[in-house]
Amino acid sequence: MTQLRRALTDLDRLDWLRLIRTENVGPVTFARLMERFDTAGKAIQALPDLAKRGGRKAPLRIASLAEAEREAAAVTKYGARLIGSCEPDYPQALAAIDDAPPLISVKGHPHLLGKRAVAIVGARNASINGKRLAEMLARDLGAAGFVVVSGLARGIDASAHAGSLASGTAAVVAGGIDVVYPEENRALQERIAEQGAVVAECAIGTQPLARHFPRRNRIISGLALGVVVIEATLKSGSLITARVAGDQGRDVFAVPGSPLDPRSQGPNRLIRDGATMTESVEDIVQALANSESRPLREPQSDLFSADRGIQVDEATVRKIGERLLESLSYTPVPVDELIRGCQLSASVVRIVLTELALAGRVQELSGNQVVLIQQ
Amino acid sequence: MTQLRRALTDLDRLDWLRLIRTENVGPVTFARLMERFDTAGKAIQALPDLAKRGGRKAPLRIASLAEAEREAAAVTKYGARLIGSCEPDYPQALAAIDDAPPLISVKGHPHLLGKRAVAIVGARNASINGKRLAEMLARDLGAAGFVVVSGLARGIDASAHAGSLASGTAAVVAGGIDVVYPEENRALQERIAEQGAVVAECAIGTQPLARHFPRRNRIISGLALGVVVIEATLKSGSLITARVAGDQGRDVFAVPGSPLDPRSQGPNRLIRDGATMTESVEDIVQALANSESRPLREPQSDLFSADRGIQVDEATVRKIGERLLESLSYTPVPVDELIRGCQLSASVVRIVLTELALAGRVQELSGNQVVLIQQ
Repeated sequence: MTQLRRALTDLDRLDWLRLIRTENVGPVTFARLMERFDTAGKAIQALPDLAKRGGRKAPLRIASLAEAEREAAAVTKYGARLIGSCEPDYPQALAAIDDAPPLISVKGHPHLLGKRAVAIVGARNASINGKRLAEMLARDLGAAGFVVVSGLARGIDASAHAGSLASGTAAVVAGGIDVVYPEENRALQERIAEQGAVVAECAIGTQPLARHFPRRNRIISGLALGVVVIEATLKSGSLITARVAGDQGRDVFAVPGSPLDPRSQGPNRLIRDGATMTESVEDIVQALANSESRPLREPQSDLFSADRGIQVDEATVRKIGERLLESLSYTPVPVDELIRGCQLSASVVRIVLTELALAGRVQELSGNQVVLIQQ
Repeated sequence: MTQLRRALTDLDRLDWLRLIRTENVGPVTFARLMERFDTAGKAIQALPDLAKRGGRKAPLRIASLAEAEREAAAVTKYGARLIGSCEPDYPQALAAIDDAPPLISVKGHPHLLGKRAVAIVGARNASINGKRLAEMLARDLGAAGFVVVSGLARGIDASAHAGSLASGTAAVVAGGIDVVYPEENRALQERIAEQGAVVAECAIGTQPLARHFPRRNRIISGLALGVVVIEATLKSGSLITARVAGDQGRDVFAVPGSPLDPRSQGPNRLIRDGATMTESVEDIVQALANSESRPLREPQSDLFSADRGIQVDEATVRKIGERLLESLSYTPVPVDELIRGCQLSASVVRIVLTELALAGRVQELSGNQVVLIQQ
């Protein structure tokens, strides 16, 4: 992080909460707005106009101060904390990904999230041996001084948490901080909240939906220096988490297995593709020591501070917006490519894209990419 | 092979048999003698003098013509054939290794040994899954047009042969062509002799000893374009076979497995070290297609034809021999290094080494290496 870390005032935090809970504002658009307007309060004031300029007909659903106050109070009442990505307690590794959640709820011991961490992910319907391995690796990682991060799912996740409860474990849940899923892991989630840390991006009380899981997975890898995959079929979410980890510049580890077990195909494929073959904790410790010199990537948003203060009039936004929408498709494209193709100034394109995003016509994604939204 | 392939006359073959069955004559020394004397008959005549020059006190035990005749007759009676490394029926892949057996006994269908082959090796105490995989891979390799080579041991070897009996299988035994080991594979060995090919380097009737197995393993890999390792502990013979295969310029394939099974450690280690991870026959076929353009290595002995006709007097042999023996140790060293260290002509050093070998003081090894023999 090149920015100075600073604590949010309670009012600031409520503004952050209002902004990220606002319709069409995802983490990337949030970051773009902060770069452009400096504070969440100023961004919120600008929102209706920006959405309208982007082509929005109906008024944008902006979270009210009362709603934000209710959420913050519920989090506090539940015994958790809301931590902003600029704050000293926000995990530094997570802040380095370019779609870092602006706010996370944390129940338990947030200081654990500041320690060096390794994620363990894998199949829900894991084999007995797979679960044994997850528990062993988690325990050995704990002994080596690492916090273990996982997703509190059945199978590999649950075993990884169980093996690292005593040494330090962090669970990232897909729904709200207070929502247990699956029900069978209720006792484990409660123990992690006491001894470790539970992390959530969604608002308290949110039931996890299918679309929340991939979003959650980027936080699991984002909190860690590396991700270990134990048992995963070729189409599993764990394999996607591994790819995301790679995109985030994190190390990928995979435990090999017999070709006769479809759950080995994922890790074996990762090893073919360059993941570190992992048979014991030494493989992880050694590879991370080699990566040590390589710093975590700078957040993308830092690149955009040049845009601050640039004014683009409404007619220009409309004209350029139409051209951009024509060039976009339902497959994400790099914004840089768009800029080259349109022969427009980078700052102007980025400003227009954010306004199109607020209008719900495009979505700004990690990796400085953008995608058209089906209307 | 740069040399023209030619059939041996019966008398030639008996001379070859006498020479390779002579005390202190291994495959490398055999090749050196053939380079120097052109025929086995002339080499045999020179043997007593060469051994004496090398420092041998007692007379060298040279196999007699009668002994050779008895062995040849027994092989014929058993229904097998003796094939010399220069003959058209000798497998070309095997002829390309620099310690190729000068003569092999083959029972069954020698033409199978001329086809493209892949070896499968692994643990004797294999798991049920390991044996299933060996049989599947062998069957699939057969369907892809490859002969499968293995060592007729229990476990992986037996399953590999069983899976490829119908399509083409070759078994290399450690003892004589007629000796069954282990006894439980008697029926399998007989079926391979009928439908496939059984290959032996030792004289007919030889009971296999511990030292025969590593020698046998170089023939398994030597017959094949690549070696697949399924289940092998870190100290297993299969792992040594894989290393030898690499030295021979052959492809190494390894089937991954769970770190919890010690029998996976061998293959997993090979994959770390660059072997092709193998989950199905496609992995093998694809890698071999990529290696196709790379020709089998020239036999080392071809490098030495320059030595032919060079004469070194006895006093020189003695003087240089003493210097070489001082430089040697019980760890093999490359002959080239020895030549550089001694600042002597390469031809002279090689001639003296062969005479020291015949005297039983050093052993000439594959890879143009030499080692001191404990007296």
